[in-house]
Amino acid sequence: MLQLDSQTSIQPMPQPTKTAVMVIGGAEDKVHGKEILHTFFERAGSAEAQIAILPCASREPAILGERYNGIFNEMGAKTVAVLDIRERDQCENVEWQEYLEGCTGVFLTGGDQVRLCDLLGGTPLMDKLRQRSQTRQITIAGTSAGAAVMGHHMIAGGGSGEHPSRSLVDLSVGLGIIPEIIVDQHFHNRNRMARLMGAIAAHPDKLGIGIDEDTCALFEGDGLLQVLGRGTITIIDPRDLSYTNYPHIEGSAPLSLHDLRVHILCEGDRYNLSKRETIPPDRLLSR
Amino acid sequence: MLQLDSQTSIQPMPQPTKTAVMVIGGAEDKVHGKEILHTFFERAGSAEAQIAILPCASREPAILGERYNGIFNEMGAKTVAVLDIRERDQCENVEWQEYLEGCTGVFLTGGDQVRLCDLLGGTPLMDKLRQRSQTRQITIAGTSAGAAVMGHHMIAGGGSGEHPSRSLVDLSVGLGIIPEIIVDQHFHNRNRMARLMGAIAAHPDKLGIGIDEDTCALFEGDGLLQVLGRGTITIIDPRDLSYTNYPHIEGSAPLSLHDLRVHILCEGDRYNLSKRETIPPDRLLSR
Repeated sequence: MLQLDSQTSIQPMPQPTKTAVMVIGGAEDKVHGKEILHTFFERAGSAEAQIAILPCASREPAILGERYNGIFNEMGAKTVAVLDIRERDQCENVEWQEYLEGCTGVFLTGGDQVRLCDLLGGTPLMDKLRQRSQTRQITIAGTSAGAAVMGHHMIAGGGSGEHPSRSLVDLSVGLGIIPEIIVDQHFHNRNRMARLMGAIAAHPDKLGIGIDEDTCALFEGDGLLQVLGRGTITIIDPRDLSYTNYPHIEGSAPLSLHDLRVHILCEGDRYNLSKRETIPPDRLLSR
Repeated sequence: MLQLDSQTSIQPMPQPTKTAVMVIGGAEDKVHGKEILHTFFERAGSAEAQIAILPCASREPAILGERYNGIFNEMGAKTVAVLDIRERDQCENVEWQEYLEGCTGVFLTGGDQVRLCDLLGGTPLMDKLRQRSQTRQITIAGTSAGAAVMGHHMIAGGGSGEHPSRSLVDLSVGLGIIPEIIVDQHFHNRNRMARLMGAIAAHPDKLGIGIDEDTCALFEGDGLLQVLGRGTITIIDPRDLSYTNYPHIEGSAPLSLHDLRVHILCEGDRYNLSKRETIPPDRLLSR
């Protein structure tokens, strides 16, 4: 009895979970180490995690929702719910709203980013999620289409295999979780450098973030970005842009962009979002 | 008689031709305006041009040589010769050497850059051409494989659709016409940004120049680069590179490159190669 009390009293105080925004380039490992998904599980509170899966980007939401449901349940989350929103007015579902009020982690799946924004953009439910993320109460992760929506401006579609131009990229409005970035996903895998440059030419006050498959840009509350996973993160910083012909061109006319700062980051690298500076890994520890 | 003498005496003195090195991204227009090929013809001396076509990169040298022969003859060159070198010892052909001694323009066709270097690299004929180019006696142009060989270091092959890594790019030694650059051609058309970044990681003392199809980087004798044609030229300048993991990685491990300076240039833009500075078009004249 004494021993039991003693055991109870030495239990560590629950640490406040270190929340994050996790922007994943798609095709993250769901079978082997599951590094990125496991990090999401931890940042959502591990055994205390109450996770909401939003599969609304997908045209197969039930199948995809179930897949992530199984993964996070197996990791040991306290609760996992799939919020299979298929119509905009379902965002007013009281039960789901209450679950989102109490949850610690939200996961946005892949699919079509335009569909995702059509369903969630501007709803009170989305406003609440954004506010809870920005006040560091929850961890939000999005993969592929779920990553594309993270900025205020969003790449809705576009092409590759051509020079940067206005017509190479379609832009629309995202969910604004991290308003100052424009995300492109499956980045080197689908050769999207030219289209992200086109997006940055349109919005040179933003920062372009290209994320490879099975790779995650993890944004800490303190404004540090760290890289997880197998590939690279490309940052296009137009802060020093000295000239662009963007205002003078149309359609597929070639774009001119002078003095972009570009970083290729991989696991071990970090980036200070407010200072716009890279932080190399500890060189003493690097192999 | 007097009139004839007078006509003779008022003929303008022949202007010294403004030679150049023209690095063409492949698939240049050979049918309509032929802007790039016509510029080569002019820089080789127009009606006084004595042009040598070197189709040795190609496995169809006779056909390709004949095509360019027809084009430059039709433009009105004084002489055009196809030097169909198929074996290294043909570089010692006295007649061809004499023609190259007197010629004003040399055109390297597309094909395989490794084949081109195997045939010409290190031969007295190539040394003579390089020296005549560097002393501004001749205009040299190369398209596609003929462009790839321009630097001292050359991209021999590589991949796309992956993050930058050591294994994404095969490097070898080029013909060194402009030693300080590493060229990649068909650039945005074949999504070669990642491989050019890999090449620059290997040789951060060089400047990466990615050239789109039907686009030409024209290097003047005074060190100014100007852009001709339909696409863009991408310059990757690693002068400010603050960190790379290149020495510590192997194979397909992701590459890290912090603080690259990248420019996308199009027709009207210029670049100062020695100062490494872009020069925007005259804004008063720009549309």
